[in-house]
Amino acid sequence: MEKREELYAGKAKSVYRTDDPERFVLVFRDDTSAFDGEKKEQLSRKGMVNNRFNAFIMEKLEAAGVPTHYEGLLSATETLVKKLDMIPVECVVRNLSAGSLCRRLGVEEGLELTPPTYELFLKNDALHDPMVNESLAVSFNWASEAELARMKELTYKVNDVLKNLFDEAGMMLVDYKLEFGRSNGEIVLGDEFSPDGCRIWDKETRKKMDKDRFRQGLGDVIETYEEVGRRLGIDFN
Amino acid sequence: MEKREELYAGKAKSVYRTDDPERFVLVFRDDTSAFDGEKKEQLSRKGMVNNRFNAFIMEKLEAAGVPTHYEGLLSATETLVKKLDMIPVECVVRNLSAGSLCRRLGVEEGLELTPPTYELFLKNDALHDPMVNESLAVSFNWASEAELARMKELTYKVNDVLKNLFDEAGMMLVDYKLEFGRSNGEIVLGDEFSPDGCRIWDKETRKKMDKDRFRQGLGDVIETYEEVGRRLGIDFN
Ligand SMILES: Nc1ncnc2c1ncn2[C@@H]1O[C@H](COP(=O)(O)OP(=O)(O)O)[C@@H](O)[C@H]1O
Ligand SMILES: Nc1ncnc2c1ncn2[C@@H]1O[C@H](COP(=O)(O)OP(=O)(O)O)[C@@H](O)[C@H]1O
Ligand SMILES: [Mg+2]
Ligand SMILES: [Mg+2]
Repeated sequence: MEKREELYAGKAKSVYRTDDPERFVLVFRDDTSAFDGEKKEQLSRKGMVNNRFNAFIMEKLEAAGVPTHYEGLLSATETLVKKLDMIPVECVVRNLSAGSLCRRLGVEEGLELTPPTYELFLKNDALHDPMVNESLAVSFNWASEAELARMKELTYKVNDVLKNLFDEAGMMLVDYKLEFGRSNGEIVLGDEFSPDGCRIWDKETRKKMDKDRFRQGLGDVIETYEEVGRRLGIDFN
Repeated sequence: MEKREELYAGKAKSVYRTDDPERFVLVFRDDTSAFDGEKKEQLSRKGMVNNRFNAFIMEKLEAAGVPTHYEGLLSATETLVKKLDMIPVECVVRNLSAGSLCRRLGVEEGLELTPPTYELFLKNDALHDPMVNESLAVSFNWASEAELARMKELTYKVNDVLKNLFDEAGMMLVDYKLEFGRSNGEIVLGDEFSPDGCRIWDKETRKKMDKDRFRQGLGDVIETYEEVGRRLGIDFN
């Protein structure tokens, strides 16, 4: 497998074509951004940490029956993935209230949400990722009713798997966003699962162990990502 | 039936208790507001026009099988309604893009939406009526899954009835918001249907004939509401 030209450089990862038209290479960079790209920094080792973190989680999800784009690690910062026709909608499940939900609904952080909530956001930085719903997604042709139903089913299935995984390692999975795409008519989990796209709190102290450390200037961002990984049993060396 | 004390004064209507514990009087005032109450004015005759407009529409909906709170006109500005346990969620159907949808999604006004879209908003001026969805409504205990399904069904049924009614009178029903409540375990359409809570365009010229005339300072607000009414066959005298 040969890495070819860069197709797209996102806020945190770059996508490269390969000699296989059905496979891409995702390169995890150290670039870190928040507030739709308004706050930006380079955090040393982030690319490596998130690449390995994501590989670990994708393997767990695949083993639990969630179809993912993950095909294997290529290097410390590179992963081989199935090329997907990405759906421009982010799927968010929340077990506890935090972040934009608190601001939008005027509720305090840390409320237990029963059942866990499910929201869709349009992936569009210029529009600040506005909240959308299935009806809008269908009428604007972002995805079909059946695809959206499958995305919801898989997003909740990810919760069943990961809530437990984090819980057993002394952490709470507060919320997370997933991105899906199409491959051979199937809905497949794409993009990444890392502390950049979820919220994780220590079970006892509720210490924030995710990108909120960067957003809120709490420091030790990557050191804490690594601690999360170590608790899960990930080897970063 | 005897009108008793005022229970609640909203932005456009007041709710009065009656000697019947199961019935309220809605008084349609001339107060007109927009932008979550930030822009406010008195528009002479609006109370009367919206009261009669609403009565006409509620009768059409009731006749078409939509359960409504409407019980009858009491005077030019007063309507007798069933007391409802209101659900704090606004249900919006759009046939054409306009208003907040255009701003949120960066799309132009007047796109035909197929199928017509359905959105929920939390009724909360302080929070600027944030968009929500069924999942949030259930987890925050605003309504049950079954109630929300019924609200959606009825909101679309209202579209079937009213799209035609406006079309036959030379107008387009662009969008509208409905509020529902509970009465004896049933979901019942409450509040009002008037040019204050929907968008109506002339079919030929696309002239705005609704509260956007007030929001956008286009003038002739109530005169245009009356023209809409007259086209539908409403007698304002
Ligand atoms: N398997 C895949 N096939 C095609 N595109 C993908 C795949 N996985 C992720 N992507 C896309 O690649 C980009 C990853 O880079 P990222 O830095 O996250 O970008 P962004 O700033 O757009 O979020 C995202 O736009 C994501 O949707
Ligand atoms: N049948 C009903 N029973 C109880 N409350 C109702 C009923 N119909 C409407 N309402 C409520 O009465 C108020 C009507 O006044 P309005 O000026 O529209 O208020 P608001 O500023 O809250 O929108 C609304 O809050 C609405 O939810
Ligand atoms: Mg991204
Ligand atoms: Mg109102």
